[in-house]
Amino acid sequence: MNVHQQHYRTIWADANQQSVNIIDQTCLPFKFEVLRLSSLATMIHAIKTMQVRGAPLIGVSAAYGVALAMNADTSDVALAEAATMLLQSRPTAVNLAWAVQRMQRILQVLPPSQRQAVAWQEAANIAEEDIAQNQAIGSYGLRCIQAVSQQQPIQILTHCNAGWLATVDYGTALAPIYAAHEAGMSVHVWVDETRPRNQGASLTAWELAQHGVPHTVITDNAGGHLMQRGQVDMVIVGADRVTRIGDVCNKIGTYLKALAAHEHGIPFYAAVPSPTIDWQLEDGLAEIEIEERHADEVGYVQGLNAQGQLASVRVMPVDSQAHNPAFDVTPARLITGIITEKGVYAPSALLELKVQQ
Amino acid sequence: MNVHQQHYRTIWADANQQSVNIIDQTCLPFKFEVLRLSSLATMIHAIKTMQVRGAPLIGVSAAYGVALAMNADTSDVALAEAATMLLQSRPTAVNLAWAVQRMQRILQVLPPSQRQAVAWQEAANIAEEDIAQNQAIGSYGLRCIQAVSQQQPIQILTHCNAGWLATVDYGTALAPIYAAHEAGMSVHVWVDETRPRNQGASLTAWELAQHGVPHTVITDNAGGHLMQRGQVDMVIVGADRVTRIGDVCNKIGTYLKALAAHEHGIPFYAAVPSPTIDWQLEDGLAEIEIEERHADEVGYVQGLNAQGQLASVRVMPVDSQAHNPAFDVTPARLITGIITEKGVYAPSALLELKVQQ
Repeated sequence: MNVHQQHYRTIWADANQQSVNIIDQTCLPFKFEVLRLSSLATMIHAIKTMQVRGAPLIGVSAAYGVALAMNADTSDVALAEAATMLLQSRPTAVNLAWAVQRMQRILQVLPPSQRQAVAWQEAANIAEEDIAQNQAIGSYGLRCIQAVSQQQPIQILTHCNAGWLATVDYGTALAPIYAAHEAGMSVHVWVDETRPRNQGASLTAWELAQHGVPHTVITDNAGGHLMQRGQVDMVIVGADRVTRIGDVCNKIGTYLKALAAHEHGIPFYAAVPSPTIDWQLEDGLAEIEIEERHADEVGYVQGLNAQGQLASVRVMPVDSQAHNPAFDVTPARLITGIITEKGVYAPSALLELKVQQ
Repeated sequence: MNVHQQHYRTIWADANQQSVNIIDQTCLPFKFEVLRLSSLATMIHAIKTMQVRGAPLIGVSAAYGVALAMNADTSDVALAEAATMLLQSRPTAVNLAWAVQRMQRILQVLPPSQRQAVAWQEAANIAEEDIAQNQAIGSYGLRCIQAVSQQQPIQILTHCNAGWLATVDYGTALAPIYAAHEAGMSVHVWVDETRPRNQGASLTAWELAQHGVPHTVITDNAGGHLMQRGQVDMVIVGADRVTRIGDVCNKIGTYLKALAAHEHGIPFYAAVPSPTIDWQLEDGLAEIEIEERHADEVGYVQGLNAQGQLASVRVMPVDSQAHNPAFDVTPARLITGIITEKGVYAPSALLELKVQQ
């Protein structure tokens, strides 16, 4: 999508296949900075520190991580080690596991001498597939938006960032919104700030502003009140994992919004590429391990200080502890539909998608 | 309650009745600073800028504001003007209106020469009554805590700050928790950080830490997840207004927690002194005007910077707008009970309290 009127993707390989470029998302929305990564270690660092984030982008980043590893060493041992290190970098992200396993499956049957070139090609394939998937999600999701209200602007609430910054381009939850905006519909987006890391206030607000989509940032606390007052027509979120019965694991706080949407009869959609659906899982609450991130993410808030520099401030007394579960699970019965690149499925119909595959 | 092992109230008059001392709550939890206020104007400033905050403390502060005004001018015009200015300083706070009207009722029938002394005495009476009320709330609320669980520690979630810092002493929502702690029960408090102003992370965490009550700060997003996982035994919040049928108007985000508590069968209490109940109101959703505060409260976060100074950082792009409703309304059907100084009432039984008065 557009940044300063110019088209960008979130990740792209250099033509010489020695390095990969990413947008450093820890600097957004205040500084637009492109980083050039030339090793597996710097890619793992980028994934762990959330310079790249968002389930689909993490998958593509991991694929390029394997390609960078093959530049250094194409042996069986190096391939296995790269896979293991990448899998450990963000345990909740199913796309990461999916992408790493796809790279492994293709590369391990090849002689080491062919692995480097194929790795770069396959990572590029995964990136292109992500873009095509997201465009299809946008088309199917557009129909959900058209169905929801005759009144314009259509008020859509989203949580965290599942925009183009979370993917290679177009986004998942925001793809239908971009599609509606391109189609000339009047949409307005309520952007949950999404504590503790503020991906809504920083990333979602930034990309919507860059693309000219009307939006308003709210605290995570405000969504229930807005729904109660009839100011939300639908909710669209992304997801880190979806189980085969349609339980949705997404950024912490999603569950509270789903409960409120259900209470007020507001359609609640999760938009995901189909690899985000983990067919091995059924009961999200019982089976998904929730990543516990560092308490300092709660204790410190990053932003731009009065001198215009990135800085963080402590918001808690030093004598107090914090607890920081990164995700929660929204049970399928609160989900209206899963928007995928193959179509929109009610949770109870999700297995039809598996049959198609 | 205790600060650095010494007992404090949040507000107290100097013996010469020329000034009133407050704890500047905008500096907490990082700096403990007492301000001496000598005029109505400085008291209104303190109320507007939330140097004093919390419904009961605002009421007492307004009463002392009238006393300070009487030091300057005891005429009918001055009394009426002081009342009008105080009523406009925080429109949602029913305790403020209650305290101002009580002062007016007593003072306006007196000859101006007697008003000054009586104003100081009556403000002191209101402060002492607040303390006695909160102790009674603590006693009644303690029974609710004892009833909720055999397992210890008892896990109690609270939102915003309705502790002693919101009152003259003891607090409302935290009074039962302090009472349980004093009674030797093992309690642990989940403290919602309470965006946008972070009164939970700053004030509630600070006062619990100072008093030695085990607690953990969480983002506002985390409560639903914790309830879903059985890690919350009960919720106690304060309130800015309660209607006669038991609708609860409290800090934005309370409604989302009440929905989640209801979903999981977790008792949800609002603890208030009885003046917080507005017998004129029935349907909170239709009848309570929600204060809209400045968007910069969402856009900027205050805390301690790396140099140990209070600073604020901007967390949103400059091109994005924010919306900042300060309160929401939780309908009575989600409320287990209203804990007051007269006893604990189910919303449907709240009128029994009115009959008693």
